[in-house]
Amino acid sequence: MIIYKEISKLNKKFRLLNEEKILLGTDGSVTNILEILFEDICKVETINQKIVDNTNYREVILKVNDIPLVYAISKTPFKNIEEENLREEIKKDLLSADIPIGKIIRKYNLETRREIKSIGIAEVDERLKTLLKTNYNQLPKRTYNIIYKNKILMEITEIFAIRGKL
Amino acid sequence: MIIYKEISKLNKKFRLLNEEKILLGTDGSVTNILEILFEDICKVETINQKIVDNTNYREVILKVNDIPLVYAISKTPFKNIEEENLREEIKKDLLSADIPIGKIIRKYNLETRREIKSIGIAEVDERLKTLLKTNYNQLPKRTYNIIYKNKILMEITEIFAIRGKL
Repeated sequence: MIIYKEISKLNKKFRLLNEEKILLGTDGSVTNILEILFEDICKVETINQKIVDNTNYREVILKVNDIPLVYAISKTPFKNIEEENLREEIKKDLLSADIPIGKIIRKYNLETRREIKSIGIAEVDERLKTLLKTNYNQLPKRTYNIIYKNKILMEITEIFAIRGKL
Repeated sequence: MIIYKEISKLNKKFRLLNEEKILLGTDGSVTNILEILFEDICKVETINQKIVDNTNYREVILKVNDIPLVYAISKTPFKNIEEENLREEIKKDLLSADIPIGKIIRKYNLETRREIKSIGIAEVDERLKTLLKTNYNQLPKRTYNIIYKNKILMEITEIFAIRGKL
């Protein structure tokens, strides 16, 4: 996938802000960009967490100054975490509810890469509108993998609710 | 360094665009963000290249659609490249004149991290104004390291000339 072309195509049918384009296409930390744009610390609120088929599922809202900005679902396969011989404290942080992955990567100086799988538009239902404090029916979304030692550490889908809040 | 605080502090004395704030603070690929914002491929034009003290120095301009957007100086210590046991083709690309580092990282699926050292304002002299096709006397700049296997692969200083061109 050629990222700028995907975003340019999407922008033709769904007008994107420059900040949304960057969030959709960056291979850097989203938490970091939210903190830069909203000038305060980014916090994670966990909505749901469950373990199915040896995978840890988490549904979270990223907030800055109590303003909900991103809805994210992450899948963390336990198998990969075990095989990658991560230190116990890193495993603990990865499975804990309240630390953004970007902060874990920085905290432990992990060398990783992010591989974007898809970029598109999410339909926003009533539950999500309430969680994200937004009135928009459609919002930009993407799915990507965080890769460490050639294995998927986490697959993340994000829906960005920054429009109207910048 | 807490990145968002540095940028917020800088923004008080030198009003930054959101796009500039993100470029100053991201730990992702700058080339990628330029391509997303300017919707075309990002090219490197080498202005100067020299080898001093076993370090490869390069002075380049990043351009999209022939519009100069970033002036960058990179330092690549040969010693680290040798010690990191990189494949010959990767070494060749790293020392070649015309491939942005972000593209090399993606091309070879390298797992890396970027560590920002400083964020500030550059004084723009006449030579730089001509190279960057800008009239601004001051532009945002930063210095960061790209780290691979715990060694500095490259130290990069970037001056961003995107204002007036977005």
